[in-house]
Amino acid sequence: MAVTVDLSVSLDLIAAGEDQTREHPFGSRLGDAEQLHAWMFEHPDDNADELAAMTAPAAYVMGRHMFGPDRGEWDLDWTGWWGPEPPYHGPVFVVCSRPRESVEMDGGTTFHFVTDGVEAAVAQAVRAAGDGDVAIAGGPTTINAGLRAGLVDELRLHIAPITVGEGLRIFDGVGELSLRPLSSRTTPHVTHVTWRR
Amino acid sequence: MAVTVDLSVSLDLIAAGEDQTREHPFGSRLGDAEQLHAWMFEHPDDNADELAAMTAPAAYVMGRHMFGPDRGEWDLDWTGWWGPEPPYHGPVFVVCSRPRESVEMDGGTTFHFVTDGVEAAVAQAVRAAGDGDVAIAGGPTTINAGLRAGLVDELRLHIAPITVGEGLRIFDGVGELSLRPLSSRTTPHVTHVTWRR
Repeated sequence: MAVTVDLSVSLDLIAAGEDQTREHPFGSRLGDAEQLHAWMFEHPDDNADELAAMTAPAAYVMGRHMFGPDRGEWDLDWTGWWGPEPPYHGPVFVVCSRPRESVEMDGGTTFHFVTDGVEAAVAQAVRAAGDGDVAIAGGPTTINAGLRAGLVDELRLHIAPITVGEGLRIFDGVGELSLRPLSSRTTPHVTHVTWRR
Repeated sequence: MAVTVDLSVSLDLIAAGEDQTREHPFGSRLGDAEQLHAWMFEHPDDNADELAAMTAPAAYVMGRHMFGPDRGEWDLDWTGWWGPEPPYHGPVFVVCSRPRESVEMDGGTTFHFVTDGVEAAVAQAVRAAGDGDVAIAGGPTTINAGLRAGLVDELRLHIAPITVGEGLRIFDGVGELSLRPLSSRTTPHVTHVTWRR
Protein backbone atom coordinates (compact mmCIF):
# COMPACT_ATOMS: atom_id res chain seq x y z
CA MET A 1 0.00 0.00 0.00
CA ALA A 2 1.34 3.42 -0.92
CA VAL A 3 -0.03 6.93 -0.79
CA THR A 4 0.59 8.51 -4.19
CA VAL A 5 0.19 11.95 -5.69
CA ASP A 6 -0.20 12.81 -9.36
CA LEU A 7 -0.26 16.50 -10.19
CA SER A 8 -0.05 18.40 -13.46
CA VAL A 9 1.98 21.56 -12.98
CA SER A 10 3.49 24.30 -15.07
CA LEU A 11 7.24 24.88 -15.38
CA ASP A 12 6.89 27.22 -12.42
CA LEU A 13 5.09 24.51 -10.42
CA ILE A 14 1.65 26.09 -10.48
CA ALA A 15 -1.30 23.72 -10.50
CA ALA A 16 -4.29 26.03 -10.09
CA GLY A 17 -5.29 29.64 -9.56
CA GLU A 18 -6.74 31.03 -6.39
CA ASP A 19 -9.90 32.61 -7.83
CA GLN A 20 -11.74 29.43 -8.58
CA THR A 21 -15.33 29.66 -9.83
CA ARG A 22 -17.82 27.31 -11.40
CA GLU A 23 -16.84 28.73 -14.79
CA HIS A 24 -13.09 28.57 -14.11
CA PRO A 25 -12.39 25.56 -11.90
CA PHE A 26 -8.63 26.28 -12.07
CA GLY A 27 -8.97 30.04 -11.57
CA SER A 28 -9.32 32.74 -14.20
CA ARG A 29 -5.64 32.85 -15.19
CA LEU A 30 -5.55 29.16 -16.01
CA GLY A 31 -9.03 29.11 -17.57
CA ASP A 32 -9.87 25.47 -17.92
CA ALA A 33 -6.18 24.70 -17.50
CA GLU A 34 -6.13 22.96 -20.85
CA GLN A 35 -2.44 23.72 -21.31
CA LEU A 36 -1.56 21.98 -18.06
CA HIS A 37 -3.61 18.95 -18.99
CA ALA A 38 -3.05 18.76 -22.75
CA TRP A 39 -0.73 15.78 -22.24
CA MET A 40 -3.63 13.90 -20.68
CA PHE A 41 -6.60 14.88 -22.82
CA GLU A 42 -5.00 15.55 -26.20
CA HIS A 43 -2.17 13.02 -26.13
CA PRO A 44 -3.33 10.05 -24.06
CA ASP A 45 -1.53 7.50 -26.22
CA ASP A 46 1.86 9.12 -25.62
CA ASN A 47 1.26 9.01 -21.89
CA ALA A 48 -0.69 5.82 -21.40
CA ASP A 49 1.45 4.43 -18.57
CA GLU A 50 1.18 7.59 -16.51
CA LEU A 51 -2.57 7.81 -17.07
CA ALA A 52 -3.04 4.18 -16.07
CA ALA A 53 -1.11 4.81 -12.85
CA MET A 54 -3.33 7.77 -12.01
CA THR A 55 -6.50 5.69 -12.05
CA ALA A 56 -5.03 2.60 -10.37
CA PRO A 57 -5.55 3.59 -6.70
CA ALA A 58 -8.38 1.98 -4.75
CA ALA A 59 -9.33 5.15 -2.85
CA TYR A 60 -8.80 8.89 -3.18
CA VAL A 61 -8.48 11.98 -1.04
CA MET A 62 -9.19 15.44 -2.38
CA GLY A 63 -9.62 18.96 -1.09
CA ARG A 64 -12.80 20.95 -0.95
CA HIS A 65 -11.79 23.10 -3.91
CA MET A 66 -11.07 20.13 -6.09
CA PHE A 67 -14.54 18.78 -5.35
CA GLY A 68 -16.29 22.03 -6.18
CA PRO A 69 -16.24 25.82 -6.19
CA ASP A 70 -16.27 27.32 -2.72
CA ARG A 71 -19.59 28.86 -1.89
CA GLY A 72 -19.84 28.96 1.91
CA GLU A 73 -22.73 26.60 2.49
CA TRP A 74 -22.89 23.28 0.68
CA ASP A 75 -24.88 23.34 -2.50
CA LEU A 76 -26.41 19.89 -2.18
CA ASP A 77 -27.08 19.76 -5.91
CA TRP A 78 -23.32 19.96 -6.48
CA THR A 79 -21.82 16.50 -6.89
CA GLY A 80 -18.41 17.41 -8.30
CA TRP A 81 -17.06 18.54 -11.65
CA TRP A 82 -17.23 15.14 -13.30
CA GLY A 83 -20.90 14.55 -14.15
CA PRO A 84 -22.89 11.50 -13.08
CA GLU A 85 -20.00 9.03 -13.48
CA PRO A 86 -16.74 10.43 -12.04
CA PRO A 87 -13.48 8.77 -13.12
CA TYR A 88 -12.59 7.49 -9.64
CA HIS A 89 -14.67 4.30 -9.45
CA GLY A 90 -14.10 4.01 -5.73
CA PRO A 91 -14.38 5.95 -2.48
CA VAL A 92 -13.25 9.59 -2.54
CA PHE A 93 -12.68 11.36 0.78
CA VAL A 94 -13.21 15.12 0.48
CA VAL A 95 -11.39 17.20 3.11
CA CYS A 96 -13.71 20.03 4.08
CA SER A 97 -14.97 22.08 6.99
CA ARG A 98 -18.71 21.48 6.72
CA PRO A 99 -20.23 18.05 7.25
CA ARG A 100 -22.31 16.51 4.49
CA GLU A 101 -23.79 13.10 3.88
CA SER A 102 -21.95 10.79 1.51
CA VAL A 103 -22.93 11.00 -2.15
CA GLU A 104 -23.03 7.85 -4.23
CA MET A 105 -22.38 8.32 -7.94
CA ASP A 106 -22.57 6.05 -10.96
CA GLY A 107 -19.66 3.71 -11.69
CA GLY A 108 -18.63 3.04 -8.12
CA THR A 109 -17.54 6.51 -7.00
CA THR A 110 -18.78 7.59 -3.57
CA PHE A 111 -17.87 10.98 -2.14
CA HIS A 112 -17.37 11.02 1.62
CA PHE A 113 -16.89 14.30 3.47
CA VAL A 114 -14.24 14.46 6.19
CA THR A 115 -14.11 17.46 8.51
CA ASP A 116 -11.10 16.59 10.65
CA GLY A 117 -8.29 17.24 8.21
CA VAL A 118 -6.14 15.59 5.58
CA GLU A 119 -4.50 13.10 7.94
CA ALA A 120 -7.90 11.75 9.00
CA ALA A 121 -9.03 11.63 5.38
CA VAL A 122 -5.93 9.67 4.34
CA ALA A 123 -6.40 7.30 7.28
CA GLN A 124 -9.99 6.64 6.19
CA ALA A 125 -8.92 6.17 2.58
CA VAL A 126 -6.18 3.72 3.60
CA ARG A 127 -8.75 1.66 5.50
CA ALA A 128 -11.13 1.76 2.54
CA ALA A 129 -8.40 0.83 0.05
CA GLY A 130 -7.46 -2.46 1.68
CA ASP A 131 -4.33 -3.64 -0.14
CA GLY A 132 -4.74 -0.98 -2.82
CA ASP A 133 -3.04 2.37 -3.11
CA VAL A 134 -4.46 5.69 -2.01
CA ALA A 135 -4.06 8.82 -4.13
CA ILE A 136 -4.19 12.37 -2.86
CA ALA A 137 -5.79 13.64 -6.04
CA GLY A 138 -5.45 17.40 -5.39
CA GLY A 139 -5.62 20.25 -5.34
CA PRO A 140 -2.22 21.73 -4.57
CA THR A 141 -3.22 22.97 -1.10
CA THR A 142 -4.33 19.51 -0.01
CA ILE A 143 -1.27 17.88 -1.58
CA ASN A 144 1.01 20.34 0.21
CA ALA A 145 -0.74 19.53 3.50
CA GLY A 146 -0.12 15.85 2.80
CA LEU A 147 3.55 16.46 2.01
CA ARG A 148 3.96 18.60 5.14
CA ALA A 149 2.41 15.82 7.24
CA GLY A 150 4.72 13.19 5.72
CA LEU A 151 1.79 11.25 4.26
CA VAL A 152 3.00 10.95 0.66
CA ASP A 153 5.03 7.91 -0.38
CA GLU A 154 5.31 8.68 -4.08
CA LEU A 155 5.04 12.05 -5.76
CA ARG A 156 4.56 12.21 -9.51
CA LEU A 157 4.66 15.60 -11.16
CA HIS A 158 3.62 15.99 -14.77
CA ILE A 159 5.38 19.16 -15.88
CA ALA A 160 3.77 21.01 -18.77
CA PRO A 161 6.30 23.17 -20.64
CA ILE A 162 4.66 26.54 -19.96
CA THR A 163 4.92 29.18 -17.27
CA VAL A 164 1.82 30.49 -15.51
CA GLY A 165 3.31 33.14 -13.21
CA GLU A 166 0.82 33.23 -10.35
CA GLY A 167 -1.23 30.66 -8.52
CA LEU A 168 -1.07 27.76 -6.13
CA ARG A 169 2.27 26.00 -6.22
CA ILE A 170 3.29 22.53 -5.25
CA PHE A 171 5.81 22.57 -2.34
CA ASP A 172 4.65 25.93 -0.92
CA GLY A 173 4.79 25.70 2.86
CA VAL A 174 5.72 22.03 3.03
CA GLY A 175 8.76 22.63 5.23
CA GLU A 176 12.00 20.74 4.82
CA LEU A 177 11.37 17.87 2.50
CA SER A 178 13.98 15.39 1.35
CA LEU A 179 12.92 12.82 -1.23
CA ARG A 180 14.58 10.24 -3.47
CA PRO A 181 14.51 10.68 -7.25
CA LEU A 182 12.88 7.58 -8.71
CA SER A 183 12.29 8.05 -12.42
CA SER A 184 11.56 10.48 -15.22
CA ARG A 185 10.23 10.31 -18.74
CA THR A 186 9.77 12.93 -21.42
CA THR A 187 7.03 12.66 -24.02
CA PRO A 188 6.38 15.30 -26.70
CA HIS A 189 4.20 17.50 -24.49
CA VAL A 190 5.16 16.82 -20.88
CA THR A 191 7.91 15.70 -18.52
CA HIS A 192 6.90 13.06 -15.99
CA VAL A 193 9.05 13.08 -12.83
CA THR A 194 8.64 10.77 -9.85
CA TRP A 195 10.14 10.93 -6.38
CA ARG A 196 9.73 8.60 -3.41
CA ARG A 197 9.85 9.43 0.26
CA MET B 1 25.43 27.54 -32.02
CA ALA B 2 23.05 27.45 -29.10
CA VAL B 3 22.64 29.42 -25.90
CA THR B 4 22.30 26.92 -23.08
CA VAL B 5 21.53 27.11 -19.39
CA ASP B 6 22.44 24.56 -16.73
CA LEU B 7 21.11 25.25 -13.25
CA SER B 8 20.95 23.14 -10.12
CA VAL B 9 17.70 23.78 -8.30
CA SER B 10 15.75 22.41 -5.38
CA LEU B 11 12.36 20.71 -5.74
CA ASP B 12 10.85 24.15 -5.21
CA LEU B 13 13.06 25.60 -7.97
CA ILE B 14 15.33 27.63 -5.73
CA ALA B 15 18.92 28.04 -6.90
CA ALA B 16 20.35 30.52 -4.39
CA GLY B 17 19.48 32.71 -1.43
CA GLU B 18 19.29 36.47 -1.49
CA ASP B 19 21.68 37.24 1.36
CA GLN B 20 24.87 36.26 -0.39
CA THR B 21 28.18 36.88 1.39
CA ARG B 22 31.76 35.82 0.91
CA GLU B 23 31.19 33.11 3.53
CA HIS B 24 27.88 31.99 2.04
CA PRO B 25 27.99 32.41 -1.74
CA PHE B 26 24.52 30.89 -2.05
CA GLY B 27 23.01 32.82 0.88
CA SER B 28 22.82 31.78 4.51
CA ARG B 29 19.90 29.40 4.12
CA LEU B 30 21.63 27.33 1.48
CA GLY B 31 25.07 27.57 3.14
CA ASP B 32 27.50 26.33 0.54
CA ALA B 33 24.54 24.77 -1.29
CA GLU B 34 26.16 21.36 -1.03
CA GLN B 35 22.77 19.65 -1.16
CA LEU B 36 21.90 21.32 -4.46
CA HIS B 37 25.25 20.34 -5.95
CA ALA B 38 25.85 16.95 -4.35
CA TRP B 39 25.02 15.27 -7.68
CA MET B 40 27.92 17.15 -9.25
CA PHE B 41 30.61 17.03 -6.58
CA GLU B 42 29.84 13.79 -4.75
CA HIS B 43 28.50 11.69 -7.63
CA PRO B 44 30.27 12.85 -10.81
CA ASP B 45 30.41 9.36 -12.30
CA ASP B 46 26.63 8.96 -12.14
CA ASN B 47 26.20 12.24 -13.97
CA ALA B 48 29.16 12.34 -16.32
CA ASP B 49 27.15 13.23 -19.46
CA GLU B 50 25.46 16.19 -17.82
CA LEU B 51 28.73 17.45 -16.35
CA ALA B 52 30.46 17.18 -19.72
CA ALA B 53 27.67 19.20 -21.33
CA MET B 54 28.07 21.93 -18.71
CA THR B 55 31.71 22.52 -19.55
CA ALA B 56 31.36 22.16 -23.33
CA PRO B 57 30.40 25.77 -24.22
CA ALA B 58 33.01 28.02 -25.76
CA ALA B 59 31.95 31.15 -23.88
CA TYR B 60 29.95 32.01 -20.77
CA VAL B 61 27.74 34.74 -19.38
CA MET B 62 27.18 35.18 -15.67
CA GLY B 63 25.66 37.71 -13.31
CA ARG B 64 27.49 39.96 -10.89
CA HIS B 65 26.46 37.83 -7.90
CA MET B 66 27.74 34.66 -9.45
CA PHE B 67 31.09 36.30 -10.00
CA GLY B 68 31.41 37.57 -6.46
CA PRO B 69 29.70 38.91 -3.34
CA ASP B 70 28.16 42.31 -3.86
CA ARG B 71 30.15 45.03 -2.17
CA GLY B 72 29.29 48.30 -3.88
CA GLU B 73 32.65 49.20 -5.38
CA TRP B 74 34.74 46.59 -7.14
CA ASP B 75 37.26 44.84 -4.95
CA LEU B 76 39.97 44.53 -7.54
CA ASP B 77 41.60 41.71 -5.59
CA TRP B 78 38.45 39.66 -6.15
CA THR B 79 38.77 37.41 -9.19
CA GLY B 80 35.82 35.07 -8.66
CA TRP B 81 35.04 32.14 -6.39
CA TRP B 82 37.12 29.65 -8.30
CA GLY B 83 40.74 30.33 -7.39
CA PRO B 84 43.53 30.98 -9.89
CA GLU B 85 42.22 28.50 -12.51
CA PRO B 86 38.45 28.76 -12.94
CA PRO B 87 36.65 25.85 -14.63
CA TYR B 88 35.53 27.86 -17.68
CA HIS B 89 38.68 27.77 -19.83
CA GLY B 90 37.31 30.46 -22.11
CA PRO B 91 35.84 33.96 -22.06
CA VAL B 92 33.28 34.73 -19.34
CA PHE B 93 31.14 37.85 -19.69
CA VAL B 94 30.02 39.19 -16.31
CA VAL B 95 26.85 41.30 -16.40
CA CYS B 96 27.37 44.16 -13.93
CA SER B 97 26.77 47.85 -13.42
CA ARG B 98 30.34 49.05 -12.76
CA PRO B 99 33.03 48.92 -15.46
CA ARG B 100 36.19 47.00 -14.78
CA GLU B 101 39.12 45.91 -16.91
CA SER B 102 39.17 42.31 -18.09
CA VAL B 103 40.89 39.82 -15.80
CA GLU B 104 42.92 37.00 -17.33
CA MET B 105 43.14 33.84 -15.24
CA ASP B 106 45.10 30.61 -15.55
CA GLY B 107 43.80 27.89 -17.86
CA GLY B 108 42.28 30.15 -20.50
CA THR B 109 39.50 31.83 -18.50
CA THR B 110 39.19 35.59 -19.00
CA PHE B 111 36.53 37.58 -17.18
CA HIS B 112 35.10 40.49 -19.17
CA PHE B 113 32.75 42.98 -17.51
CA VAL B 114 29.70 44.11 -19.45
CA THR B 115 27.67 47.06 -18.18
CA ASP B 116 24.88 47.18 -20.76
CA GLY B 117 22.83 44.18 -19.76
CA VAL B 118 22.39 40.48 -20.36
CA GLU B 119 21.47 40.80 -24.05
CA ALA B 120 24.70 42.66 -24.78
CA ALA B 121 26.68 40.13 -22.75
CA VAL B 122 25.15 37.22 -24.66
CA ALA B 123 25.82 38.97 -27.98
CA GLN B 124 29.49 39.43 -27.00
CA ALA B 125 29.72 35.81 -25.86
CA VAL B 126 28.19 34.58 -29.13
CA ARG B 127 30.79 36.51 -31.10
CA ALA B 128 33.58 35.16 -28.89
CA ALA B 129 32.28 31.57 -29.11
CA GLY B 130 32.50 31.30 -32.89
CA ASP B 131 30.82 28.02 -33.78
CA GLY B 132 30.70 26.96 -30.13
CA ASP B 133 27.83 27.18 -27.70
CA VAL B 134 27.30 29.91 -25.14
CA ALA B 135 26.14 29.13 -21.61
CA ILE B 136 24.37 31.51 -19.29
CA ALA B 137 26.02 30.04 -16.21
CA GLY B 138 23.91 31.79 -13.56
CA GLY B 139 22.78 32.93 -11.18
CA PRO B 140 19.01 32.61 -11.26
CA THR B 141 18.41 36.36 -11.71
CA THR B 142 20.59 36.48 -14.81
CA ILE B 143 19.10 33.27 -16.18
CA ASN B 144 15.59 34.64 -15.66
CA ALA B 145 16.58 37.82 -17.51
CA GLY B 146 17.84 35.63 -20.35
CA LEU B 147 14.63 33.61 -20.43
CA ARG B 148 12.53 36.77 -20.37
CA ALA B 149 14.51 38.18 -23.28
CA GLY B 150 14.09 34.96 -25.28
CA LEU B 151 17.83 34.35 -25.38
CA VAL B 152 17.87 30.75 -24.13
CA ASP B 153 17.75 27.91 -26.66
CA GLU B 154 18.15 25.02 -24.25
CA LEU B 155 17.33 24.97 -20.55
CA ARG B 156 18.68 22.14 -18.41
CA LEU B 157 17.54 21.97 -14.82
CA HIS B 158 19.23 19.59 -12.41
CA ILE B 159 16.61 19.05 -9.72
CA ALA B 160 17.94 18.06 -6.31
CA PRO B 161 15.31 16.18 -4.26
CA ILE B 162 15.07 18.68 -1.40
CA THR B 163 12.97 21.73 -0.64
CA VAL B 164 14.59 25.01 0.39
CA GLY B 165 11.54 27.20 1.02
CA GLU B 166 12.87 30.69 0.31
CA GLY B 167 15.27 32.17 -2.17
CA LEU B 168 15.79 33.02 -5.82
CA ARG B 169 13.71 30.84 -8.12
CA ILE B 170 14.11 29.94 -11.73
CA PHE B 171 11.15 31.24 -13.83
CA ASP B 172 10.31 34.12 -11.48
CA GLY B 173 9.29 37.08 -13.59
CA VAL B 174 10.04 35.49 -16.95
CA GLY B 175 6.60 36.21 -18.36
CA GLU B 176 4.74 33.75 -20.56
CA LEU B 177 7.16 31.08 -21.60
CA SER B 178 6.31 28.10 -23.76
CA LEU B 179 9.05 25.51 -24.30
CA ARG B 180 9.35 22.01 -25.74
CA PRO B 181 10.21 19.11 -23.45
CA LEU B 182 13.35 17.49 -24.84
CA SER B 183 14.65 14.87 -22.43
CA SER B 184 14.94 13.77 -18.82
CA ARG B 185 17.09 11.38 -16.86
CA THR B 186 17.05 10.32 -13.23
CA THR B 187 20.21 9.28 -11.42
CA PRO B 188 20.32 8.32 -7.73
CA HIS B 189 20.63 11.89 -6.44
CA VAL B 190 19.15 14.17 -9.07
CA THR B 191 16.65 14.52 -11.91
CA HIS B 192 18.00 16.09 -15.09
CA VAL B 193 15.31 17.75 -17.22
CA THR B 194 15.88 19.56 -20.50
CA TRP B 195 13.62 21.82 -22.53
CA ARG B 196 14.20 23.60 -25.82
CA ARG B 197 12.79 26.86 -27.04
